[in-house]
Amino acid sequence: MSTRTVIRGGLVITASDEVHADVLMQDGRIAAIAASNTPAAEALSAERTVDATGKYVIPGGVDAHTHMEMPFGGTFASDTFETGTRAAAWGGTTTIVDFAVQSVGHGLREGLDAWHAKAEGNCAIDYAFHMIVSDVNEETLKEMDLLVEEGVTSFKQFMAYPGVFYSDDGQILRAMQRAADNGGLIMMHAENGIAIDVLVEQALARGETDPRFHGEVRKALLEAEATHRAIRLAQVAGAPLYVVHVSATEAVAELARARDDGLPVFGETCPQYLFLSTDNLAEPDFEGAKYVCSTPLRPKEHQAALWRGLRTNDLQVVSTDHCPFCFSGQKELGRGDFSKIPNGLPGVENRMDLLHQAVVDGRISRRRWIEIACAGPARMFGLYPKKGTIAPGADADVVIYDPHAEQVMSADTHHMNVDYSAYEGKRVTGRVETVFSRGVPVVTDREYTGHAGHGVYTPRSTCQYLN
Amino acid sequence: MSTRTVIRGGLVITASDEVHADVLMQDGRIAAIAASNTPAAEALSAERTVDATGKYVIPGGVDAHTHMEMPFGGTFASDTFETGTRAAAWGGTTTIVDFAVQSVGHGLREGLDAWHAKAEGNCAIDYAFHMIVSDVNEETLKEMDLLVEEGVTSFKQFMAYPGVFYSDDGQILRAMQRAADNGGLIMMHAENGIAIDVLVEQALARGETDPRFHGEVRKALLEAEATHRAIRLAQVAGAPLYVVHVSATEAVAELARARDDGLPVFGETCPQYLFLSTDNLAEPDFEGAKYVCSTPLRPKEHQAALWRGLRTNDLQVVSTDHCPFCFSGQKELGRGDFSKIPNGLPGVENRMDLLHQAVVDGRISRRRWIEIACAGPARMFGLYPKKGTIAPGADADVVIYDPHAEQVMSADTHHMNVDYSAYEGKRVTGRVETVFSRGVPVVTDREYTGHAGHGVYTPRSTCQYLN
Amino acid sequence: MSTRTVIRGGLVITASDEVHADVLMQDGRIAAIAASNTPAAEALSAERTVDATGKYVIPGGVDAHTHMEMPFGGTFASDTFETGTRAAAWGGTTTIVDFAVQSVGHGLREGLDAWHAKAEGNCAIDYAFHMIVSDVNEETLKEMDLLVEEGVTSFKQFMAYPGVFYSDDGQILRAMQRAADNGGLIMMHAENGIAIDVLVEQALARGETDPRFHGEVRKALLEAEATHRAIRLAQVAGAPLYVVHVSATEAVAELARARDDGLPVFGETCPQYLFLSTDNLAEPDFEGAKYVCSTPLRPKEHQAALWRGLRTNDLQVVSTDHCPFCFSGQKELGRGDFSKIPNGLPGVENRMDLLHQAVVDGRISRRRWIEIACAGPARMFGLYPKKGTIAPGADADVVIYDPHAEQVMSADTHHMNVDYSAYEGKRVTGRVETVFSRGVPVVTDREYTGHAGHGVYTPRSTCQYLN
Amino acid sequence: MSTRTVIRGGLVITASDEVHADVLMQDGRIAAIAASNTPAAEALSAERTVDATGKYVIPGGVDAHTHMEMPFGGTFASDTFETGTRAAAWGGTTTIVDFAVQSVGHGLREGLDAWHAKAEGNCAIDYAFHMIVSDVNEETLKEMDLLVEEGVTSFKQFMAYPGVFYSDDGQILRAMQRAADNGGLIMMHAENGIAIDVLVEQALARGETDPRFHGEVRKALLEAEATHRAIRLAQVAGAPLYVVHVSATEAVAELARARDDGLPVFGETCPQYLFLSTDNLAEPDFEGAKYVCSTPLRPKEHQAALWRGLRTNDLQVVSTDHCPFCFSGQKELGRGDFSKIPNGLPGVENRMDLLHQAVVDGRISRRRWIEIACAGPARMFGLYPKKGTIAPGADADVVIYDPHAEQVMSADTHHMNVDYSAYEGKRVTGRVETVFSRGVPVVTDREYTGHAGHGVYTPRSTCQYLN
Repeated sequence: MSTRTVIRGGLVITASDEVHADVLMQDGRIAAIAASNTPAAEALSAERTVDATGKYVIPGGVDAHTHMEMPFGGTFASDTFETGTRAAAWGGTTTIVDFAVQSVGHGLREGLDAWHAKAEGNCAIDYAFHMIVSDVNEETLKEMDLLVEEGVTSFKQFMAYPGVFYSDDGQILRAMQRAADNGGLIMMHAENGIAIDVLVEQALARGETDPRFHGEVRKALLEAEATHRAIRLAQVAGAPLYVVHVSATEAVAELARARDDGLPVFGETCPQYLFLSTDNLAEPDFEGAKYVCSTPLRPKEHQAALWRGLRTNDLQVVSTDHCPFCFSGQKELGRGDFSKIPNGLPGVENRMDLLHQAVVDGRISRRRWIEIACAGPARMFGLYPKKGTIAPGADADVVIYDPHAEQVMSADTHHMNVDYSAYEGKRVTGRVETVFSRGVPVVTDREYTGHAGHGVYTPRSTCQYLN
Repeated sequence: MSTRTVIRGGLVITASDEVHADVLMQDGRIAAIAASNTPAAEALSAERTVDATGKYVIPGGVDAHTHMEMPFGGTFASDTFETGTRAAAWGGTTTIVDFAVQSVGHGLREGLDAWHAKAEGNCAIDYAFHMIVSDVNEETLKEMDLLVEEGVTSFKQFMAYPGVFYSDDGQILRAMQRAADNGGLIMMHAENGIAIDVLVEQALARGETDPRFHGEVRKALLEAEATHRAIRLAQVAGAPLYVVHVSATEAVAELARARDDGLPVFGETCPQYLFLSTDNLAEPDFEGAKYVCSTPLRPKEHQAALWRGLRTNDLQVVSTDHCPFCFSGQKELGRGDFSKIPNGLPGVENRMDLLHQAVVDGRISRRRWIEIACAGPARMFGLYPKKGTIAPGADADVVIYDPHAEQVMSADTHHMNVDYSAYEGKRVTGRVETVFSRGVPVVTDREYTGHAGHGVYTPRSTCQYLN
Repeated sequence: MSTRTVIRGGLVITASDEVHADVLMQDGRIAAIAASNTPAAEALSAERTVDATGKYVIPGGVDAHTHMEMPFGGTFASDTFETGTRAAAWGGTTTIVDFAVQSVGHGLREGLDAWHAKAEGNCAIDYAFHMIVSDVNEETLKEMDLLVEEGVTSFKQFMAYPGVFYSDDGQILRAMQRAADNGGLIMMHAENGIAIDVLVEQALARGETDPRFHGEVRKALLEAEATHRAIRLAQVAGAPLYVVHVSATEAVAELARARDDGLPVFGETCPQYLFLSTDNLAEPDFEGAKYVCSTPLRPKEHQAALWRGLRTNDLQVVSTDHCPFCFSGQKELGRGDFSKIPNGLPGVENRMDLLHQAVVDGRISRRRWIEIACAGPARMFGLYPKKGTIAPGADADVVIYDPHAEQVMSADTHHMNVDYSAYEGKRVTGRVETVFSRGVPVVTDREYTGHAGHGVYTPRSTCQYLN
Repeated sequence: MSTRTVIRGGLVITASDEVHADVLMQDGRIAAIAASNTPAAEALSAERTVDATGKYVIPGGVDAHTHMEMPFGGTFASDTFETGTRAAAWGGTTTIVDFAVQSVGHGLREGLDAWHAKAEGNCAIDYAFHMIVSDVNEETLKEMDLLVEEGVTSFKQFMAYPGVFYSDDGQILRAMQRAADNGGLIMMHAENGIAIDVLVEQALARGETDPRFHGEVRKALLEAEATHRAIRLAQVAGAPLYVVHVSATEAVAELARARDDGLPVFGETCPQYLFLSTDNLAEPDFEGAKYVCSTPLRPKEHQAALWRGLRTNDLQVVSTDHCPFCFSGQKELGRGDFSKIPNGLPGVENRMDLLHQAVVDGRISRRRWIEIACAGPARMFGLYPKKGTIAPGADADVVIYDPHAEQVMSADTHHMNVDYSAYEGKRVTGRVETVFSRGVPVVTDREYTGHAGHGVYTPRSTCQYLN
């Protein structure tokens, strides 16, 4: 069965082009693109026609950093693969790369299998996996090779969370060396967790238990330190490096310095660092707990450096680090002790809209919006050109986006399985209208028309930014 | 008459995508792109079909820095618009942006008109103009506004060549302020010409007359100095800046520093700085004169910084600064006095091939090749998406490129009107096979099928890298 | 006649030592220093004994930047050598290095002779000369050699004040080359005067005539630009460089960068940049004119960088740039046009006290106080160890300083020939009590006991910071 | 008994002055200094007169980094306090600051007492102690306060040597916080030992056992990384930092960056990094083992950055890290496994001469020689002005140095208890002639006239570079 759909009259935006064109989707792929209102466009024949006049036609978003059902601090992220990917679709994201977790003492395979089991048959959109490596040893290193071969080509390590996900510098160096050999990409949570844990203990001893102290103890300098350290270790290993959730001016500066030196170093930031700040962490009545994540929110002044980095390509990707915990019952675990608040924010549904708001605000161009939200993550993690663009042969993951619609973000209206919105009451311009995943409409004129199990696992090639 | 041509089976490469697709050209534009070997592709109907199997299908090159028939040092660049644009086409370039010259004491309009007269009816491919501003005054500043309105949106100033093109820092500041207001972009020849002239005089007084002394007196530090100065003046004026023909490591460092600070500063380098060096300037028997241009060729060690800048986007454009003078009769004017050698190199025909060689050598990706040679210059100078990409609606400036063909560069075989090649004997992989300009084949299977007058003047919008 | 004086019981402070010691002066020199209250100290015999118990015994200050009777803007600095050096003595300074001026079209010799004539027989303390070079030509360059031989070993050039003192980059380069050969030191007024004059004209055209606009048009970025340019020119010339009156954070950064690269680059700041700010320039009723000097006062935030530079030795000297003009009749020349306000501030009397206040405030150590105010300038300008230290054989230029006395700075009580104080009402801790110049008391227990003509011209050797 | 000695006619050099003066020593202290050949000098009466005509009279050296009898790798440094301090005296050093060692699981007090026991009664010259902190815990932190009070004001931690001296970042942060409170100074061995150990293991597994691989695995980047990390941790703690034995260009750059930012960060290098290189480590027949120390010797190119740092004060101190192991029987423990070679070089006797050679070579001035070898370490570690200068009241630790004598360094003639010289055969100009320790001649005209037990323990105040 080959249902063809043609989207007519929209402004097709990719990472490099903006053209008025009609897009034909067939067999789950982009079949053709033709200049609107030309004979060639008219010649595109399809069973179904969607009018996108006055709208943007953009690639579905690629969110390269989500944690569905992630175990953390004795609880689990509140979005399952089912609820989380549905919300992603609502927000114009058609691919997620989630993190499978190796537990200490267990193998990568075991962890990966567990995550496959969670995801399979439950996803509204396509998905892939990174692997969190918590326990580097000879066996793990060998498994890394196998995972790269089967399409799990990126490995996350933590310089934070001693005793849980933490790797020491020797383990990091070994994993980086292996990645340098097998083509994998090390993703780094860059915070000096050993030093931070001292500050946490001291803060609690002083009675500083409020969520805002989470932001004070996880110092920007300790993010910058770890970022620099990771860069140097990668340099020693001859490996590329991707730093996740960069939030501090000083960390951006370390990335810029490395890139000015020609090192293959990359960086991601997240909407929460671009739009929220320590002001949120300081909200009264324990409301600050809603904004507890790591790296933490920073004072507002840090935002300018992040936008700068996004503009001049010292940062290449905006992901969400979506890892929602309900305020009630989950975030509340940390009342009286900020260190017990589960770390994470909901966001998978909000990313495309928030970044479009940055377009409206003149911070980035439309093309750069698509580059940092779609094409960039797809290239970084070996999904391109299948994902992240609108080009003949690519997967027909397409969003019809209304750039003029206004919306107010709210837990009342969002589709993530979490009892609050990090952006409650925020008014933005722009809204997802219709979403195709491999040619199938999963959101249609703001009605959910998808289903769990439509999304399939998508193995990845290696990073495409290394020539 | 609407002749349609379809190019089938090639790998279509743009600044962001690489897809196997068929490209339909109609009425001088890209009409449609369809995934090869699909029903949608088969549905593309055309009078003419070109087989590009095993070939690249790329946007025609945009060379944003040429000097056809440029007067310099009492002679003229040896390529006319006719010969120069024909050679450009041979080399896969379908648009040039040439420099109209204001003479001191005359208006911009007068200079621009003179250049229009030289070009009109003579060009094989499309062309546009920058304006060289040699004489900043109240009248000139007003004319700048008019020129921006009519599509001459960039203005070049010189910190070198006192007494000829030189502007002092006050004139530069005034022009930058005006550009900040009218949306124009100041392009800067960044060398401290006042200091250089002292060194020239001293060198000649010491009897250092050989071409290699051209490279010694025009010091990298004086390029870096002027680059920094231009950046600071632009910062004071609140204006963007584009530095032409960046050649020195230290100058790249200044650009990188500015961009790390978030300034709207851009840089161009040229193939001669990427592939040639002071070794060439030191060739015996006055042969070094062939390589005399300003900024000068640098010691080989500088090349790494240029490639680095191209990779991480501290440099955005590769142009040729094509300004050929015959060795015999022109370059020879400087025998016994290197300062009398006309400054300039031929190159408009070689750029696309040399940069493809960099792809072969693993220095840049294919997409980045197209970005720095086609899309980047088009965006920088307001020609996008008309030029620089293959997208529905764009001008059908398309090159079929054979990535496997080998060629040896030589004056014997090139089409530029100059008696030597700067790359004589250089063996490269990759060659232009067929070139379309607005759908018309100007080179067909390595036969010239174009004609003078096909190319038309193309007004430009303002720089598209400033949101 | 050999009158011996012994100063007993004070804390003798030099650039490197702080010891309780008795100091014997004989024949105008330091004869011996002995640990107080030891047989060796008791053995020091003298005609006169001064008790310095509880006081500091420090080297007389060396002010390496004064402009007595300087012609500027159609008027003259209000302090003559007689009044200015007397005030210097009151303030604990026992040596000044003043600037002789070459006028355009005249020789260095002529200018130097004129300054000798002004100073000779009129000075209360010793003096030396730098030479302002306004007109670089073959003759001037030869005269530079002669002046170095006779003890005028430093030459000031201006990148500001086009049409008056301004040198272009070629003239600067030539002078630097000559200095590199003859051992001289180029001192640079680093502001881009060409660009500033454009901003001045534009500001006046907008009706911005108040003194505060003096600070706005002379932008920090244009100081940084010129600083960087001077550094690069010196690098090309292979010459050392001394940048006068550094005031902007960005300029300090350029000096630091150069020094991190190992270049022989030095910097001076002045008390006005450390203690005053644009807040003063903005004082109402034209009072801001009192603070008009160039480089201009900066926003307060710049002070931290200057103190940092002084602490870590990116700045080596604090001079006054003493160049007083009376508010009444002189500064008033610029009512309605800030560009007509004579540039300059009084300060020769205040420097030692203000810097001691920085010691009291914990900004610098006592030893660093002496280093930046006495030893540093003496070494920088070839007066060491004759001046700037208390060591056997050195000139007996000694100040007994009461570190606990309080004073309020005021035009009512100062001794400079100017009708206002830049520090009116400022309360500081520390005060000069007694001053010896070559063993002769010129201030005795806060009575003036010196006389015009005591001070003698002091030829200098070359810079002592270049090994 | 008060024996007075006067040293006549020499050039007395301190960190800031160079004067021809006679120096009277009485009761172990400098009593007086008088200008030579003046009545004041003649009035100095003494039982003993030493003629220093044509010689330098300099402060005795202060070597702030020695390891006498240090246990390492199952053996002990071959110099006892008796032999080591005697050799130091021979080399013109009159004070050492040695490292007492806390063993893991034991207290600081216990370690300090042990070192007191080793030293007491055995030293030829005065000595003080730093404390190596191997085990940070609540008890240790309290002991740090006590030690500061009793004159052990600096604490060394190791980022290298996991399992032995290694502290993790949390332990480092805690110790730094304590130092910030009690005025202590943390000294850091800055190498990422965790990563290095991985590289060691891998090198050995590849059969790379030669001493030269010691230099290859302990990478400059890993020194720079640890240096940066230590700086950031100190910044978080609000503490000053002193980095020991800096050897790599990249590490100097980190220090310079920190100092440009105004941080109280200091650095030491050692003669071996200034004069030796990986060329020595690569000497055949296991001779390279003689040069095994950590941080390791670097390629020659690194030396320029160290000299630069010494000149512009990004490095403040040159110590020896004297830690000798005999080639025979000790260094040989590492045949077949470079990681088993005891780390350390002899040098306490050579430092003053090698640095004087740098004066001869024009790398540093005479005053800077004294500053980095005598005054600087004395100020850094709270021994000033008792040690490190020649000033009335200071300890009469004085060296008469012949700047013209030539010598050839050799194990045949040196006095260190070790069977080889790291500088065997090196010819230098300059030699110690006579050495006084508190007025007592311990070397007299190149005869040893001292005795074990003359030297006494010297408690220290806190760092004098922090105002």
